This record gives sequence, C-alpha cells and structure tokens, in this order.
Amino acid sequence: MKEKVILIGIAGGTGSGKTSVARAITGDCSRDDVALIEQDSYYHDMKNLELSERAKINYDHPKAMDFDLMKQQIKSLLNRKPVAVPTYDYTNHTRSENTVSFSGQHIVVLEGILALYDAELRDLMDIKIFVHAPDDIRILRRIRRDLKERGRDFDTILEQYYETVRPMHMQFVEPTKRFADIIVPEGAHNHVAIDILRTKIKNLLEERIVKS
Amino acid sequence: MKEKVILIGIAGGTGSGKTSVARAITGDCSRDDVALIEQDSYYHDMKNLELSERAKINYDHPKAMDFDLMKQQIKSLLNRKPVAVPTYDYTNHTRSENTVSFSGQHIVVLEGILALYDAELRDLMDIKIFVHAPDDIRILRRIRRDLKERGRDFDTILEQYYETVRPMHMQFVEPTKRFADIIVPEGAHNHVAIDILRTKIKNLLEERIVKS
Repeated sequence: MKEKVILIGIAGGTGSGKTSVARAITGDCSRDDVALIEQDSYYHDMKNLELSERAKINYDHPKAMDFDLMKQQIKSLLNRKPVAVPTYDYTNHTRSENTVSFSGQHIVVLEGILALYDAELRDLMDIKIFVHAPDDIRILRRIRRDLKERGRDFDTILEQYYETVRPMHMQFVEPTKRFADIIVPEGAHNHVAIDILRTKIKNLLEERIVKS
Repeated sequence: MKEKVILIGIAGGTGSGKTSVARAITGDCSRDDVALIEQDSYYHDMKNLELSERAKINYDHPKAMDFDLMKQQIKSLLNRKPVAVPTYDYTNHTRSENTVSFSGQHIVVLEGILALYDAELRDLMDIKIFVHAPDDIRILRRIRRDLKERGRDFDTILEQYYETVRPMHMQFVEPTKRFADIIVPEGAHNHVAIDILRTKIKNLLEERIVKS
C-alpha cells in the first residue's frame, strides 16, 4: 500500500518569486520523485482564433487557463497515473506539439499565479503556499524581466500592467492569499523559508520512498 | 564540538494565536531540548511605583519590557549557559520571587508581541515567524479571553484596546511582520503550518542530539 501522493500549491503575483521558490524547494529532488507542474502550461490553445485576435486575449484572467485539463492531469498524478503535460507556444499562442511526461512521482507541485484559485484543486492540496513580495518590488522585477529577457519595450509593459496584469492580480490572485497555509515573504531570497519547506518535502519523500 | 543553539522568534498581535503556535510547534519536544521563553516574563518590575501609578503604565509599549535582561538571558542560552527567567506578578505589576530555570537546550523559542522588535535579537535569530490573523478575529479572541479568563468587563477591554493595544500594535507590532521569514495565517488552527515548522524543529533537534 503506497502512501498518498502529496499535492503542494505555490501561488503569488507576477514578480513575487514563486517560480524561484518552487524550483528552490524541489531542486534537490529527483524528477522521478517530484513533479513540478507550471500552471502556464495550461493556457488554452488559441489556434482557432485569428493571430490578431490572439494578441487581444487577457492572459491574466482565469478564463485563459484550461482548468479542466489541469485538474484532470493533477488528479491523474495523484492517482499515480502518467500524464503528458502540454507546452505552450507563447509566440503563436497555441499548444505546441511537444508534451512533458510525468509518471509515478510521490509529490506534485503546482506553481502559478492562480495555483490557489480553483476550489476543487485547493481541496486536493496538502500544503498551500503564497509567495508575497511588495507591489513595487514585483513590478520592478517584471519590468526588468520583460525588458531584458523578453525584449519588450517599457510602454508595452506599462500598458499591459495597467490593463490586465494589475486588475487581474487584485481581482483573482491577491484574494487567494487567504487560502494559504504559509505565506513566504520576499520569494527566492528567503533562504530560511526555503530551507524549512525543503526539509518538509525531504521528510515527506523519505516516508514515501521507504514504503514504495 | 556542539552544534550552535538555534533561536526562533515568534511574534504576532494580541489574539493572533502566536502563543498557541509556539506551544504547538514545541509541544512534542522535551523541556531539556527546547526552551520556550515568553516575552511577557520580562516586564519591568514596577515595585518602585505607587500601585495607582502602576495601573497607568502602557504595557503594550516596548519601554514596558526589560529588553536588556531579555537579551542578556537569550545570549546566555545561545552560549549554553544556565539562566533564571523571571516570572511576573500581573496583579501587583512586580517581578515575583519565583524564576524558571533553563539550561543546555538546543533550541530557544522566544514568543511575544515584540519578539521581532529588537534588531540585535533579530540578528541572532535563525527563524523569524510572524503569526497573522485578521484584526476583527484578533479583537474577538481578546474580548473573549479577557471576559472569560480574566474577569474584565467589556468597557474596560474596549478602553484599553483603543488607548494602548491598538495604537501600539500599529506602531510597534505590525511593522515587524516585514522581518519575518515565514508568515503563519490563522495561528493555532493552521495545522499545516504547524506541522511544517514542527518537522523543521524535529530535524534541527535530531542533528543536535546526535552530535551532543
């Protein structure tokens, strides 16, 4: 009789450091043991829309996400069934043909701005984490990333922030902080919190590997 | 060569559940291994004041605390030297003759509304925890406790809350949240956070007991 698969949710606003926290707390673990699932993999495929229409979509709204597929795959992983997680082509706003396979992991980590948004998923979670950083720090990190890594210009970043990122954060992301079991301030730079969570994950994994 | 003694600070407003969290995360541990130190033990002895004067003191202000003695004793514990922690007589606002002895513990937990207030103490801490509960929940818990356990009447509780508890919370307690490594929402009812912190403490203790 195998121990139940553990589901951990990690949410937080853009630039909060949630992705770095998710990677840091699972970084020591084998991919055979821990599945790190990114919410962004589940953007709806926009292939049936004109390219000009695809650019107008509000990608920060929960409707942009295929929560049905996300839930179906998370549930499969919790039942130790294999899944093929889609990958997203951000240039064309379509699902690419590649998928990423997961199978038999003892711990599943779901990371994304809306990881704690869906009530059904929340109910399945053993640990719910919200990564918090002040709003000014978050927007500075986002600007830096979008300027340097994504080649966007400042005015486009600004427009997108005011039009979708900020209002969607206030409406859908920030309110999920109240569901968190643990709030991690300052994200990736918080070595103490990362060490505490890593210890818990290691401990859960040891219990499971011994019994498997 | 013994491992360094670990110092954990647990702060939070009145009614946040910080005391329950401190007890819950250390409850499994032997008193030989973990020293739970309450900030309230270090109220200044008011014996040189008239009794009528003692009642007028703002006990929620950092000045009401003997931080010098607190720091001296915490440092002694970190150096594995024995200390005699004072106990406070709340009726007479004096230090009672009894003390509580601690000696040789591997982990020291300092708990109180101002546990994260002093910069020197914060620098000595390995883990800084802030227990957060919404303001309305906190005041409801405080009213209930003061009415039922301390025999105070509602008007006195209200007056004290407006005159000292609330302004001191806003000025001195709440701002220390920014120093926390981990924020624990909902205090004592948060079994997931308590379990995570307990796992870390158990782990730190195992490392130390093996080597001692």
